[in-house]
Amino acid sequence: MSGDTAAIALIGDELLSGKVVDENAVLLIRDLRELGVTLRRVVILPDVVDEIAESVRALSAGYTHVFTSGGVGPTHDDLTMEGIARAFGTRVVRHPLLEQMLRAHYQERLQERNLRMSEVPEGANLVAGEGTTWPVVAYRNVYILPGVPQIFRRKWLAIRERFRQAPFQLRCVYTDLDEGLIAHHLDHIVATHPDVQVGSYPKLDEPSYRVKITIESKSAPAVIAASEALVALLGPGALRVE
Amino acid sequence: MSGDTAAIALIGDELLSGKVVDENAVLLIRDLRELGVTLRRVVILPDVVDEIAESVRALSAGYTHVFTSGGVGPTHDDLTMEGIARAFGTRVVRHPLLEQMLRAHYQERLQERNLRMSEVPEGANLVAGEGTTWPVVAYRNVYILPGVPQIFRRKWLAIRERFRQAPFQLRCVYTDLDEGLIAHHLDHIVATHPDVQVGSYPKLDEPSYRVKITIESKSAPAVIAASEALVALLGPGALRVE
Repeated sequence: MSGDTAAIALIGDELLSGKVVDENAVLLIRDLRELGVTLRRVVILPDVVDEIAESVRALSAGYTHVFTSGGVGPTHDDLTMEGIARAFGTRVVRHPLLEQMLRAHYQERLQERNLRMSEVPEGANLVAGEGTTWPVVAYRNVYILPGVPQIFRRKWLAIRERFRQAPFQLRCVYTDLDEGLIAHHLDHIVATHPDVQVGSYPKLDEPSYRVKITIESKSAPAVIAASEALVALLGPGALRVE
Repeated sequence: MSGDTAAIALIGDELLSGKVVDENAVLLIRDLRELGVTLRRVVILPDVVDEIAESVRALSAGYTHVFTSGGVGPTHDDLTMEGIARAFGTRVVRHPLLEQMLRAHYQERLQERNLRMSEVPEGANLVAGEGTTWPVVAYRNVYILPGVPQIFRRKWLAIRERFRQAPFQLRCVYTDLDEGLIAHHLDHIVATHPDVQVGSYPKLDEPSYRVKITIESKSAPAVIAASEALVALLGPGALRVE
C-alpha cells in the first residue's frame, strides 16, 4: 500500500496488567485509517527504559511516523522521555519553553518535581497543534502523547490533520461459500491484481453470509477491477458487493 | 515480579486497518492477570511472514509463554503457521491427526484446500484441551490460537488452567494530592520496598480522588508493608486504601 506508514507504542504496565483497558490505540487505529495512513505495527510495552528505547529505535527506523502513548509525567514510572532519548543516543534536558509554561501555570505552587514535565530528549521539537494549551513533543518522527485518554485525544486531534494522505478505497464482497472453497479464487485475484490487498474474514453466527472478502488499495479503478473479477469467479456464490 | 511471563502476538491486517477491533487480547490480558502470569508484551502484526517470524522468535526467547491470535485458515492471508515455522528454522507439514480429523469432518465435501488447516510447523504439539473438539497447536512455548473471537475463546478456555500461578496481591491507595507533590514519596517507597511494584495513575474528571497508586507483588505481607509505609508518608493526603 503506497503512502506513509505508522506504528503505535503504548507504554505502561497498567495496560499489560489489565488495570486499564486501552482507548488510545483504538482511536489512533480508526483515525489513521481515515487519514489514509497505513498502520503497520502496534506494541504495548512495560515501564522499562531499555525496552522503550529498543522498540522506539526500531519503529522509528521502520515507519514514517511513530506515536507513543503514556509514560509521561512526574513519577518514577514515567519513563518514556528517557526511553526515547536512549533510543537515539541523546539525553533528557529541560525544554526552556516548556519550563516557562510550567512556571507560569503553577506559579507559587510550583514544586521542583513539576519541572520534570518539561524534560524532553535533547533536540526534541514542539509541535504546536492548533487549539492546544500545551504543545505535543516530537523527536524526529516520534510523536510523544500522554496516556490519560482525555489529554491524549485532545493532543492527537490538534495534530492529526498534518498526517493526512490520499484515502483508502475499499470494497467488500460477501459470499455464502466456505473459505476453503474460495481460497483458490482469492489466490488468483492476489496474483493477477498485485496493486490491491485482499483479506478474507469468515464470520460465525452471521446468518446473511459466511465470508467477507475485502479488496483495497489507494486506486479506485484497481479496487473496482479486482472486485469485479472476484465476483465473476464466485458466480452465484457472490451475495453482494459494498 | 516473580513467576511466569507471557507475550501476545495478534496477527492480521484487519486489526491494523481498524476493520476489526480486537477482543482476543482484551480477554487474554484479563485472564493472564487472574492466572498470576505477568504479561510483558503485546504486538499487533500484519499478515507478513517475515514480520511474524521475527517477532515470534524474539517473543519465544524472551518470555515463558507466547500466545498468537489470527492468521490460521485456508486462504492466502493466513500466514501464521508459515511465520512460526520460519521463526524456528523449520517447515510447515501436515499433521497426521489433524488431517485425519479434517477428513472425518468434511467427508465427501473435502476440498484439497481444506487440508491446509492441518498444516503446522514440523515438530508442533497438539495440546489436548479439555472439552475441545479441535486441539490447540503449540510449537515449543508458542500457543497458536485462531482470530475468530468465538473460536479463540473456546480454545483458550480449554487450556487456560495449565498456566495458573500464584495470584497477584494488589492494594490501591487513593490521594487528592497532585502527582508532582507525591512523586518523592513514591520514589522512597520504590527504593525501600524493592519487592513491590508501584504505579501512579492520575485520573481526570474524578471527583473523589486525584491519583490512584497501585502497589503489587506476589507477596501479601510485602504489599501490606509498602502500602502502610506510603499511607504514613502521605498523611492526611491518603484518602483511602482498597
